[in-house]
Formats: sequence, C-alpha cells, structure tokens
Amino acid sequence: MSKKKLIIIGGGFAGLNLAKFADKNIWDITIVDRNNYHAFPPLFYQVASAGLEPASISFPLRRELNARPYRHARYRMGNVESIDVAAHTITTQFETIPYDTLVIAAGTTNNYFGIPDLEKRVFSLKSVPEAIRCRNEILDRLERAVLCKDPAKRKSLLTFVVVGGGPAGVEIAGAIGEMKRFVIKKEYPGIDPDEVKVIIVEGNDALLKAMGKKAGHDAIDGLRQLCVDVWLGKTMESYADRIATFTDGTTVTTDTLIWTAGVTGQPLIFKGADIKPGHGNRLVVDRFNRLIGADDIYAIGDIAIMTDEKYPHGHPQVAQAALQQGKNLALNLSRTQDAMTPFSYRDKGTMATIGRNKAVVDTGRLHLSGRFAWFVWLFVHLMSILGMRNRAVVLINWIWNYFTFSSGLRLIMRPKRYPVRAYWSE
Amino acid sequence: MSKKKLIIIGGGFAGLNLAKFADKNIWDITIVDRNNYHAFPPLFYQVASAGLEPASISFPLRRELNARPYRHARYRMGNVESIDVAAHTITTQFETIPYDTLVIAAGTTNNYFGIPDLEKRVFSLKSVPEAIRCRNEILDRLERAVLCKDPAKRKSLLTFVVVGGGPAGVEIAGAIGEMKRFVIKKEYPGIDPDEVKVIIVEGNDALLKAMGKKAGHDAIDGLRQLCVDVWLGKTMESYADRIATFTDGTTVTTDTLIWTAGVTGQPLIFKGADIKPGHGNRLVVDRFNRLIGADDIYAIGDIAIMTDEKYPHGHPQVAQAALQQGKNLALNLSRTQDAMTPFSYRDKGTMATIGRNKAVVDTGRLHLSGRFAWFVWLFVHLMSILGMRNRAVVLINWIWNYFTFSSGLRLIMRPKRYPVRAYWSE
Repeated sequence: MSKKKLIIIGGGFAGLNLAKFADKNIWDITIVDRNNYHAFPPLFYQVASAGLEPASISFPLRRELNARPYRHARYRMGNVESIDVAAHTITTQFETIPYDTLVIAAGTTNNYFGIPDLEKRVFSLKSVPEAIRCRNEILDRLERAVLCKDPAKRKSLLTFVVVGGGPAGVEIAGAIGEMKRFVIKKEYPGIDPDEVKVIIVEGNDALLKAMGKKAGHDAIDGLRQLCVDVWLGKTMESYADRIATFTDGTTVTTDTLIWTAGVTGQPLIFKGADIKPGHGNRLVVDRFNRLIGADDIYAIGDIAIMTDEKYPHGHPQVAQAALQQGKNLALNLSRTQDAMTPFSYRDKGTMATIGRNKAVVDTGRLHLSGRFAWFVWLFVHLMSILGMRNRAVVLINWIWNYFTFSSGLRLIMRPKRYPVRAYWSE
Repeated sequence: MSKKKLIIIGGGFAGLNLAKFADKNIWDITIVDRNNYHAFPPLFYQVASAGLEPASISFPLRRELNARPYRHARYRMGNVESIDVAAHTITTQFETIPYDTLVIAAGTTNNYFGIPDLEKRVFSLKSVPEAIRCRNEILDRLERAVLCKDPAKRKSLLTFVVVGGGPAGVEIAGAIGEMKRFVIKKEYPGIDPDEVKVIIVEGNDALLKAMGKKAGHDAIDGLRQLCVDVWLGKTMESYADRIATFTDGTTVTTDTLIWTAGVTGQPLIFKGADIKPGHGNRLVVDRFNRLIGADDIYAIGDIAIMTDEKYPHGHPQVAQAALQQGKNLALNLSRTQDAMTPFSYRDKGTMATIGRNKAVVDTGRLHLSGRFAWFVWLFVHLMSILGMRNRAVVLINWIWNYFTFSSGLRLIMRPKRYPVRAYWSE
C-alpha cells in the first residue's frame, strides 16, 4: 500500500513535533515553510539585544529532518498563499502541491490592530529577521545619538519604548535596561547613561498578566531596578512623526518603538470552503484539532483555537501547547476516528526573565523569582535548544556576557541593498 | 599642550593597527567607519559557504577600542563622502569633522571593470553583508532547484560560476565544491550531486597567480578533486539574462555568478586639491605613506599604492601589508620629518585553502601543500581572530563541521523588507 501524503505547513514547535511522532509507515511527510530553518522564539529577544547570534537559535530544517526521529520527512521551501479545500491542494509562490491530509501549523504574526502604517514604523520580534533588524536599529540609535547635538533629536534617539507587557516585552525592555545600566558608560563615552530612557507600556493594569499577580509585581520590581519606566493602563492610539500617543492623552517622542502588543494568525486564503477564523484570526478546531468546515485539514499550535471547559477562550499561545498538540495529533493520525484522543493541555508553567539574575517562574503551584528562577530559566532554555553545537555556542555566549558585559555581537549588520532582480522572483 | 586630532578613516587591519601603535600622549584618535565593527576578510568565504557565523569574524569597534592598547581612541559611525584638503575637514552623511592629521585606510571594494549592470547581477565577497547575501543566494538556488521541473531552469539554478582565480575565488569555489561532494546527497534528496556544476574562471593562465606556479597547480588539483571545473585564460565580457559570455566566445548559463575578479580603491572625493588616483583607483603615496598632493594626509593599506625597487607596481593588497603600514606610520607620526623610517614590506608568505585537508602555503622560501598546510592555515587564521570568545566559537564550528559535514548555519536569512523610513535617512 502506498503511503498517504501528509503536508505540514510550518516547521515550528507544533509542525516539527508532529513530524517527529507521526507514523512513518503510514505517512509520507512534507514540511512546507517559507524559511529553511526552525526557529526558537523564546530567545528572539536575545538576538534583538545582541546577546546571541541568530544562528544559535535557528536550526536548518533539512538538517533536523535528517535526524533519526524525522527520517524520510522532506522539506520544501514556500510561503503558502492559498489552500484549495475542494481540490486538496496548497499553493505557494512556487508551486501547487496535492495532499491527502493537511496540517496547518503556520503560527502567528504581529497584530497592529489596524493602526495606520504602524507596521512600517515600529520594530518587532516575531521572527529572526525581525529580531536582527531590532538589534541593528537599537545600536544605530546609540551611534546616531553620539553624533547628534540637537537636544530634542538626541532625546528621541535615546528613548526606547516597548509596547506590550507580555514576556517578549518584559524581556526586551529588561535587556535594553541592562544596556543602559551596564554598557553605555563603558562603550559609549559620548552618551550619559541617564540620557537613555526605557519605557514599557501595557494596556492592562499589570505586566505578565497570564502569569498571575506575583509574577507581575516581580517583573515591575526587576524592571525598575534596571531603570525601566513601567506605564500601565495605557493603550497606544497612534505613532506618527516619532510621537506615540496613548488613549489617556500621554505622548512620548521616540525614534524606536518596539511592538510586542499582540499577535494574529498568519493570513491564509481558503478556496472551495467557507472557513471563518475565530478570535485573533486563529483557525477554529475541534478537540481533535480538526479544522471546522473542511475535510482532512487540521490546525495545531498558535494558529489554532480550541476551546474546552478549562480554556473557554482557547489555549495560551506558547511553545508547550504547540508541542503537545503536535504530538497528540501525530498519534491520532494513525488511529481510526473513534479511537482518537481529544487534546488536553497540560500546563507545565511559564517563565520570563528580566535581566541577569532575575526571572520569574510560575508553574501554577510554585512561584519562583530572583536568582534561582533565573538559573531555572537558563537551564530550561538551554536544554530546549536543538543541537549540541548550538547549546555549546549559546552557553559560551551566556557565560562570556555574564562576566564581561562585553558582547561581541553588538554589530550593525544591515543588508547591502538587494538588487531588483533578486529574491523570490523567478 | 593639547593633543592633536588624528582622524583615521576605516577600522580595518591598517587603521586599527595604526590606532594601536600611535602615541596616545600626542594624538587624540578617532576612527570613522561606516560599519561599527572590524571585520576579518580572509574568512568571508566561510560565511558565504555557511561554515561560520558572521559574528565570529566581526568585532565591534567600540569593544576593541576599549581594550588597553587602544585606550581613549574613539569611534564615530559614518561613511566618509568627501575630504576638504584645504579646510582640513572630512564630511560623512552625518557631520563634518576637523582633523590635524588624516589617515585614509578605507580599503577597496569590488571592481566591475565597467561591465554594465554587473553589480546588480552578481554576488560578491568584499564585506560581511555581501558574504551573508552570498550564503542566502547559494542556499536559495538549491531550494529552488528542488522545486523546479524545467530542465533548463534547473540546470541554471544548479550551476555556480566563480569569476576570479585569486585566493577568495579559489576558496569559495572549493567550498561550493565540498557542498556538491559531501552535502547535497545527504541534505537535498531532490538533487543529484552530479547535477551541481561548479566552475571557476580566471583570465590569466594560472590560479593563485600571486603565489607562484606550484601553488597554482596544487589549487587546480585540489579543486578538480572536488569536481570543480577550472577554466583558465577566459575573461568575462558580459553577464545578462543569466548568460555569462567570455572573450573566447564561451558562454555559460547560471543563476549564480560570484564575482571575485578585481578590486578598486573605495571612492573618495577630494576638495581643495588635485589628487590623482593611481592604478586601481588607489591613492598614490610616498615611502612614508604621505598622500602625494596634500598636506597632513596619509594613506595606508589596500587603498594606498606605494612603489619601491622591489615592488614597482605597489605592494600586494593583503592583510600583512596593511598591518605593517599601520604600525610603521604610527611610529613615524611621533617622529620629526627627518627621523621618519621609510616603509619596507616584509612578505611573511601567503596561503589559501581549498576544502578540508587541503591548502597551499607559500612563504617565498617554503612551499607547503596538503593536510599539513591546511593545519598551518587553520592555526594562523584562528590566532588572527580577535577575541577569545570568537576563537572558541570558530573552533567549535570548525571541529563540528569537520566531523559531521552538518553545518547548522545553512540558513536563508533574508532581511524583512525594510520600510522606506528606515536607515541612514534622518
């Protein structure tokens, strides 16, 4: 019997775990991803703050799929633009591929909530290139401030505003706060550290809302020790001419606004079926991750929204949920319909770090903060990184930076202007 | 007595060594460079072939200048656009800076010999971003070939042409040849290694012309073992519609042409003096590296051309000459005119590598090739890299790749399209 074609859109946590646990005797597996690598989003902020090389948290999919548990899974480059539900095909910018079963694990991208032109004006952290760009632009502001004598321009260049008080926002604000406290004086003699202003703004009344009150308080304490201003209960309305305006009338002038305020499911066009996305443009699935309104299509990870008694608004969009859904679906795919196990999320806890020696870890039962939590954070993240070489390089970088504060990665490495002929075009 | 202002344009081998040895009691030193890092060109080809992270061979200037031998030297970001010889100022895109003494160490860039639009169509290796781009595009061709069914297009995607038979050309051709021999079969099941064609083309009748006959022969042997075609005595005339045409009428169709065929001095505009550049747009200097036709201006490194009895056409444009000129000028700058020592180049030898276990080393007296030469090459390059952290990371990468052929760096990491507002603009 020939194998059935399983196409997985997206080689993130969900898609890769599905490929790992799927039965290779039944399924002929292909991962389609616009990038040729699996990335590790929890550490994007360290790329943005010049603490890690991009390559340390990016893993070529072809190399991964060569490893034993994935054996025979294939990779094809492509950005999936549409799915023909009736014809059972997907179409990328390069080709149309037929499937027997399709799993959508395409993840999320930034949500700009319809604020005009915001995408062009802010920096973000939802992909490796976005993080590299964030690093380049933060360092560029410091260089340009050194050269700038106009006090107003200089102030705007040295004001860094992070919008969004979730883990990504807290972590990048903390990392910039550390630069202010420990790096500026040493490496930028033309700047007084007090000139650098770091502000984190959150619409809710607490940081790390998803992690509970204690974690939120610890985060505020930690950030304040790094001289980061914490603004709560302010929602951004507009950002134009370098001025960010908030709903309560507050304004701040900044050349650098880092946007971590929300995510939305990657946009996909469905043909031959009427698929209505749910909250946050997520794809509505049943307890078996089956896409409502289509046959032979599943959605897993951040892009999927599944509701149950415990999670009436869907599961949190975190790595754990994605990994667990990938594995559960992989096992279900080799079962008959009746024998399928509904997905049930096991929350192993969440964590966030706020600079050196400071982190918060929350497992529901247990709340840790401070230096021990930070070691837990380091250990868990190091072990989650794919590949021994990457772990070794990350560990060297962390130890080096811990003792010296002297990152060798503060590089402004912008692309040479690409000629028109180049990329994606044929 | 207040110190005199010494401005150095360029933080490469020449400029950085000058800053290191200049007398800090006399000179107030500022390095102006468009990039905030010092780079290590001999290993650019390893970035292009996904063997090393860009950050491993790029060293933030602010961190370097913090180190003891440079103490108090400053860095300012800027691309020097013009030099006002009469007013004693330089102008970047950001500012105008006065100098008492100016040292031009701006290096070279690619020479396209006036071939129309060549710059937009080829890939090059003269800077870190160019090398990153080369990596992205080589990997992109392989991905697109996997998806391509049209035989002619597929052939063009899988043909890699390197123009220029100097060390950079030989090294990148060898690295792509290694991918063909060792990587394609393992990681690209959709491609037959025999489909991949690697060609190196040189206008002269030998490779590595500067290193002597024996080295040239060894390079050809080594490249042929890696299934690289070596074409000698062919000069490229044009490259359009994917077709490269050579003076003898030969043509080859390729999507990827890597240009290492020539360099030219970085363009600079001189005001208030008539400075005539010499061969290869290099700045003509006397035996003390004084720029002919200007006061208080010196030029060192690849951009300078100095002739003496032994080098009637100028010194080779290599790291050693740049380092030696930087040091010699640094010492001369604290001497009176009469006590200055004319520069004399001490050739310590040259080397190039052609894949694993193969290199050629030529010290004039001694010619080495094969595995021992390769170890010499590895050792010399590793020791020349700035910083312990970088050496450790490079060593890990080399050892890892040597045993596994499984580079974790084969990443296509293209920039997110930058918005119009961003960079360099104010």
